[in-house]
Amino acid sequence: MEATIAGCAELGVPGIGLWRDQVAELGVARTAALARAAGIEVTSLCRGGFFDAPGWFDDNRRAIDEAAELGAAVLVLVSGGLPAGSRDVDGARRAVGDAVGRLVPHALAAGVRLAIEPLHPMFAADRCVVATLGQALDLAEPYPSSAVGVCVDTYHLWWDDQVWAQLARAGAAGRIACFQVADWITPLPEGVLLGRGLPGTGCVELRRFREAVDATGYTGPIEVEIFHEDVWSRPGGEVLRETVERYVEHVL
Amino acid sequence: MEATIAGCAELGVPGIGLWRDQVAELGVARTAALARAAGIEVTSLCRGGFFDAPGWFDDNRRAIDEAAELGAAVLVLVSGGLPAGSRDVDGARRAVGDAVGRLVPHALAAGVRLAIEPLHPMFAADRCVVATLGQALDLAEPYPSSAVGVCVDTYHLWWDDQVWAQLARAGAAGRIACFQVADWITPLPEGVLLGRGLPGTGCVELRRFREAVDATGYTGPIEVEIFHEDVWSRPGGEVLRETVERYVEHVL
Repeated sequence: MEATIAGCAELGVPGIGLWRDQVAELGVARTAALARAAGIEVTSLCRGGFFDAPGWFDDNRRAIDEAAELGAAVLVLVSGGLPAGSRDVDGARRAVGDAVGRLVPHALAAGVRLAIEPLHPMFAADRCVVATLGQALDLAEPYPSSAVGVCVDTYHLWWDDQVWAQLARAGAAGRIACFQVADWITPLPEGVLLGRGLPGTGCVELRRFREAVDATGYTGPIEVEIFHEDVWSRPGGEVLRETVERYVEHVL
Repeated sequence: MEATIAGCAELGVPGIGLWRDQVAELGVARTAALARAAGIEVTSLCRGGFFDAPGWFDDNRRAIDEAAELGAAVLVLVSGGLPAGSRDVDGARRAVGDAVGRLVPHALAAGVRLAIEPLHPMFAADRCVVATLGQALDLAEPYPSSAVGVCVDTYHLWWDDQVWAQLARAGAAGRIACFQVADWITPLPEGVLLGRGLPGTGCVELRRFREAVDATGYTGPIEVEIFHEDVWSRPGGEVLRETVERYVEHVL
């Protein structure tokens, strides 16, 4: 955490999205102080959600509080998969909407926006029943856009021919709370979690997404997200520099 | 092939969908004779497509001829992924539609129906750019439904909340050429090809799909498709019996 925040400051990266488990290692207060001292904005906290887990309500309230303490405007929500033994994906999606609704008062009070993130349909069974931007927007719709938005992640959405219309819908409704760019590389590894390479190493039209999000009037941060053993095994400073270069080349 | 066809006959399974590579091992004429002698209908041939491969046109014409010789009414088409180095998924989908169109005269002459199969979006980059039933129907639309239909496979479509409306659309247009049931089990293995268990071992609402397809007026065959190392490593006869039992329990 210290090295990453220092590295961002050194390279002129103005903000960083953080993960709760890594924040917990250093402590929320210390992480917040570190980012503040370096002039780095915490753009989002990943992640709340997992509404199928016991204790989800209290845990999500804690996540909202942590985001607020970090100065993060957004808490990203990954909904969780089907309840054990269930095949009712429609019901699971409705339950996600209800759970988000129960968090709205606490989010509004804390000044943290909830961002429902659609994950790629390959995660629909065991990680996130919300699988398209259209579904995420449907779930967000009953709640004020100041409290509930969506997270647009290119990795999860690139295959969907409806995504361009749904981006326009999201923009018109002021629902884009978070924008993440990540590239899709094959073959997918076992468990399919760690298949995201550096920008430009995969097949996603990253610049097309950035332009489409820009066109909605979104002016918030753009986060680059990379999950890949080959990338993670390299020195962090080197990866950070290459990420900035590739961001300029493939996204900006 | 001999054992499978004999096993189907013994268990009262009236038809079987075949794969080209396995037909080629025994020979098309011999396979056709074997199925005919056993009173087993060849319900479909898998697969044509891969329109990004060199020689696709001639190879697909051969596949149509093979289907005709086997008495299979349907050739299933898996479109292929993005051309090497390309990120243009829209363009790749348009090219699939054009390629299918070029095959229509030969398919009509041979009396074989082409079935565009949408594969799960996790295959969109490297195996099949057609990722939803809606996309498959869009691509089929310019051509007569007697020549071009779609293949409905529960494994690929279960996560999609649009699928019920698209099934109704497919039925109204007479486009359902093939109906395959396969179940989704997790975790996904490396390469994600072999994640399909026996009916009822996963999270797909198989009966809901069967009823929805029935409701469109479809009266054709229902194929069960299983790709999993654990299943393949068991004796074939045992798997076939369990498949029939599970089909009755979870699909019929």
